[in-house]
Order: sequence, then C-alpha cells, then structure tokens
Amino acid sequence: MDMEKVNSMDFREFVDVFGNVIERCPLIAAAVWSQSPFSDREELERHFSAFIDALPQSGQEGILRCYPDLAGREQHRGTLTAESQREHSVAGLMSLGTDEQLRLAELNTQYRARFGFPFVLAARLSDREAVFQELQRRLHCSSELELRTALGEVKKIGRLRLADLFRVDPVGL
Amino acid sequence: MDMEKVNSMDFREFVDVFGNVIERCPLIAAAVWSQSPFSDREELERHFSAFIDALPQSGQEGILRCYPDLAGREQHRGTLTAESQREHSVAGLMSLGTDEQLRLAELNTQYRARFGFPFVLAARLSDREAVFQELQRRLHCSSELELRTALGEVKKIGRLRLADLFRVDPVGL
Repeated sequence: MDMEKVNSMDFREFVDVFGNVIERCPLIAAAVWSQSPFSDREELERHFSAFIDALPQSGQEGILRCYPDLAGREQHRGTLTAESQREHSVAGLMSLGTDEQLRLAELNTQYRARFGFPFVLAARLSDREAVFQELQRRLHCSSELELRTALGEVKKIGRLRLADLFRVDPVGL
Repeated sequence: MDMEKVNSMDFREFVDVFGNVIERCPLIAAAVWSQSPFSDREELERHFSAFIDALPQSGQEGILRCYPDLAGREQHRGTLTAESQREHSVAGLMSLGTDEQLRLAELNTQYRARFGFPFVLAARLSDREAVFQELQRRLHCSSELELRTALGEVKKIGRLRLADLFRVDPVGL
C-alpha cells in the first residue's frame, strides 16, 4: 500500500483498513480521515497520536479499556482481534502453561483493580518472561505515570500495525 | 437492570453491556465508566452526550462514520450490529423493493460525498417514507447544521438503546 492509494480512499475504505490501528477504536481512524491527504506514513501516525493526546483523561482511559488482557478472557473465548492474536502469538502468550496462565490472570486482575484499565504492552517487542517482569514492575507505578506509559504502548502497537499495513519492516521504528 | 447493578460493574462488564450505545464506539462507553457511580439512567445518558460534545469536530465526524448507511452495504453483507438490524427492521428498511433500494443507495452516496459521513437517523422513530423524505431534505442543509443534526440523531439512538437495556418504555423519551 502506498500513500497515493491511502489518500484516494473514502472514509469507509479507510476505516476498513485502519479501523483497528487503535484496538477496537474505529472512531479514531474515522476521525483521522478528516486530516487526509497525508504526505507519508509518519504523518498519518502523528495524527493518530495527536488525536489520542487531545482526548480528555476519561477518553484516554476509554481507549485502554478497549484492549484485551494479555493471555486473558478474550484469548480464552477466541474473541481476540486478528491483530491482537498475532501479537500474543509472537510474544509466546498463546502457549503458556497452566501455572503461568493463572499467575498472569492474577497479575492482570490486580492491575485492573489498581488502575481501572487493563495492562497494555506492545507484546511483539517483548517475550513471555519480559511480560511478567514488566507487569510486576508497572503494578507499583503511580496512576499518573502508568496512564502515560500505557498510552505510549498504545502508540507503539499502532506504529507496528501501521508498518504491517504498509509492509514496512518495523525493526528500528 | 437497575442502577445498583450498573454501579457495581467493573469496566469490562460495563463495556460488554453499553459498548454499542454509540454504534461501534466501545471507547465512549469505556470513557463514560470513569464517571461512575451514576444516580440514574438520565445521568448515565448525559455522560454519553457530554463526551460526544467535548470531542473535537474530527472526533464527532469519526463517530458518525462508525454508523452504517441505512439499507446499505452492511445490511447487504449481513454485518449490521444487532442494534442496527433491529432499528432497520422497525423502520421497514429490511424489506425494501429493488427500486427503493437503488434510490436509497444513490441518496446515501450523494450524502456521503457531500458531508464526508453517512446519513444517520433514529430509524426506530421513522418509517421508510419518512427516511426518504428526511434524507432528501437534509442533503440540502449546510455542513455545519448537518453535523449538529446528525449528532442529535446519534444521541436519540443512544437514548433508545439505553431505554432497551433498562427495559424502559421509550415512548415519550
């Protein structure tokens, strides 16, 4: 896909293609379309980030609440989005042993209870050991810092999903 | 469902139940959860409206772009949400003749091209004849007025969907 093609899309095509750059938030892709045409992928990415940054805190928390727990309810129900499933898979989260599953479920529950949103991490840049370490570390951060960290992960995930759509090697992004 | 039950929900239950009050925008329900507890249904509804009103214009247009055309692509593909399907059905839009389908498709296309979002109407408060009349009338409105009108319809649809969830008779709402 190239920018010329993207810039020729009506909003329905655009949302079909980019609707899950931010997990289960087609509203954000649909809002970003208002800024077309885009000069390049980086500009497109900046509009996604800018929209997120401009939301009130409740909206930013709302975005996070649209992400699944890692190796949680949606994985077990088979209702992960295709993008999330791939990310889980790369991080080795589709093949956890029962002990690891239970331990992760417990940590996810503690995290949700503490912050009011799920633990969000760019799993493709991680592995199962790092997921546990990072979850345990972030559980002890302040709410303010954790909101910023989690939104940073949302943007990293978005950057990787955009790179996939443009067939760009995400290494070094 | 009563408010005590709603106020006891964690964000995952809340988004499961209210995630489609605004069509395909679980982000908005997830953001509204930040304002819980709620004293009554009216307060809950006001938080949905307030969130929409506080968005930048691109975000408001983004919401509208998450709604399906009436009797359009999603209906033909069978990908309407359960709520939209019911609303289409009540307005008699699931049983249009071929001529009416083609005429509506043409008007929908004109509307999308003119305003950059789909024609949104609280179809349950309408019927097929009124849908055509209203679409033809609104095609000639200014962009500014039409954005306000369409967001008003989004709120009406949300009010009716909330009434359903609370099993309240929507007559007179």
